Amino acid sequence: MRIALDAMGGDYAPEPNVLGARQALQEHEGIEVVLVGDEEKIAPLLEEDRDHPRLSILHCSQVVGMHERPSAVRSKRDSSIARCWELMATNKVDALVSAGNTGAVAAAGLFTRLFLKGVRRPGIAVVIPTKSGPSILLDVGANAACKPEHLYQYGVMGSLYAQKIVGIEQPTIGLMNIGTEDGKGNELVKETHRLFNQSHFSDAFHGNIEGRDLYQGTANVVVCDGFVGNVVLKVSEGMFEYVMGMAAEGVLPALNQERDLAKQAFKKIADRYHHSSFGGAPLLGIEGTCLICHGSSNDKSIRNALLRTAQHAEVHLNEVIVAALNPPAEA
Amino acid sequence: MRIALDAMGGDYAPEPNVLGARQALQEHEGIEVVLVGDEEKIAPLLEEDRDHPRLSILHCSQVVGMHERPSAVRSKRDSSIARCWELMATNKVDALVSAGNTGAVAAAGLFTRLFLKGVRRPGIAVVIPTKSGPSILLDVGANAACKPEHLYQYGVMGSLYAQKIVGIEQPTIGLMNIGTEDGKGNELVKETHRLFNQSHFSDAFHGNIEGRDLYQGTANVVVCDGFVGNVVLKVSEGMFEYVMGMAAEGVLPALNQERDLAKQAFKKIADRYHHSSFGGAPLLGIEGTCLICHGSSNDKSIRNALLRTAQHAEVHLNEVIVAALNPPAEA
Repeated sequence: MRIALDAMGGDYAPEPNVLGARQALQEHEGIEVVLVGDEEKIAPLLEEDRDHPRLSILHCSQVVGMHERPSAVRSKRDSSIARCWELMATNKVDALVSAGNTGAVAAAGLFTRLFLKGVRRPGIAVVIPTKSGPSILLDVGANAACKPEHLYQYGVMGSLYAQKIVGIEQPTIGLMNIGTEDGKGNELVKETHRLFNQSHFSDAFHGNIEGRDLYQGTANVVVCDGFVGNVVLKVSEGMFEYVMGMAAEGVLPALNQERDLAKQAFKKIADRYHHSSFGGAPLLGIEGTCLICHGSSNDKSIRNALLRTAQHAEVHLNEVIVAALNPPAEA
Repeated sequence: MRIALDAMGGDYAPEPNVLGARQALQEHEGIEVVLVGDEEKIAPLLEEDRDHPRLSILHCSQVVGMHERPSAVRSKRDSSIARCWELMATNKVDALVSAGNTGAVAAAGLFTRLFLKGVRRPGIAVVIPTKSGPSILLDVGANAACKPEHLYQYGVMGSLYAQKIVGIEQPTIGLMNIGTEDGKGNELVKETHRLFNQSHFSDAFHGNIEGRDLYQGTANVVVCDGFVGNVVLKVSEGMFEYVMGMAAEGVLPALNQERDLAKQAFKKIADRYHHSSFGGAPLLGIEGTCLICHGSSNDKSIRNALLRTAQHAEVHLNEVIVAALNPPAEA
């Protein structure tokens, strides 16, 4: 498994990126990592792994900033994100991992057009924690102008990802809507609803769900337009922080002796949530594997994402997606 | 101020509705309430207010259920929601309050077409609590097929509502988007962004905001498509409950003697949030006043909404909206 790691992507890069790569190499013998980025900054961080046989550096001179427009990746041909995609497009690596500008990583994937057979548009899937265990939400930002066929394919791809990677045996698929009854919502979701009901996946299709069902875990896979998904994901992040802050501010002053115990418990919950929500999010529908990590990733998150790419290959995720989207009856 | 109250709307109707009406009458001498609904169910709840000079019942035989399609209000002509709108359309009342099926209340408003001069589509505004105080989010479900002009008008109406009713002196207007840079997002938000910048409200326009800015209170008024707003509002409701549950489950067992103190503090926060978020939400852009209450409204919420309608009239909210949307330069 050869993996390109965007060494420059993320709020704290390149330190946690390089450290995470070194940890992953130690843990999995089948992994080779190409660190893509500014060699001068990366090299000093390698320490005793300087001559590691499964580690190399591909120097590049540019970086797409975390707050730049995604389209910047088009003009910055020597950016770490563009180079990672180039390595994958030319079969020099099997996977890429980036904690950089999510929009830019996805945009570069769209430009490169490494789409799996039958896939109309790739989509970013995130695993979110819910009352009933993990759910998969997609698309969360790769595609802000979805067509019904795209949403249908997100349901299929998300469902196979849930099964093969997240370990949910028979995932149900819910369509994010503004009411649960059939016939609700705008034209996009109405037509998507019809597509699911007429498809091979009609049994797994739970129908419409509403926003408040998301954290109940009413459906294992929740499908929505990339605009809606991105807003939902970021509102959730902001709201988690807001509610936890409000809870701590309300509870801690009400206590006397046990304030420190409570403070520690709050911190533990925040840490657990942070890591459960923001592992590497795959751009599904791509020839190869692309995992996008949260901008605030630490070395552990990077290491986990690198190891996760190997899992994608082991379970043949792309092959099952292609089989599901190109059923023999339609051949 | 004559107000039609949908006596049948809400999860616990008609008890809290009737009780809330009786409280409002006692508190504000300028209010007259018409209880619209099943007389047999309403009358026994009136008790000593049976012959109250400012209270009357308009009997009707139908109810639009909380989970029925909004369009049901079209065929149920003798439903409490349809009758409330009819009273307003025929100038028998100045305002209506309903805790019933939100979609049906808004749909009936659209059918009735009691739009203020210059208003293209009414929108539902909710006040949400944020780190920096209350913000206004709209539309949250009246209009799931927004055009740029609609979103622009929501910004204007939301801003005047923020000023006149919520008491925010110089409200800023943010456009919900998937990135903060200019030029981000789908066609709808890109064009809306241009409209704001070219308008009389360009100084108040903060530009794009992202989901995570919502609970930071980065903008006082947040404008979005009714599909997005409805999903955001319901995801927030669900997430509040999920995070508070997770916090309580994590913190309470970590304590020994002071578990009860902490439990009370958690409950207090939940109650406060519930009441701060879900007051009566106005359908802005309507000739008259329409306040939509949360389905779980209690008597206090209904009372507050009834009193709030009087405030709408006192500050001449509709007049300032009409003036802002029909500037003399364009006359």
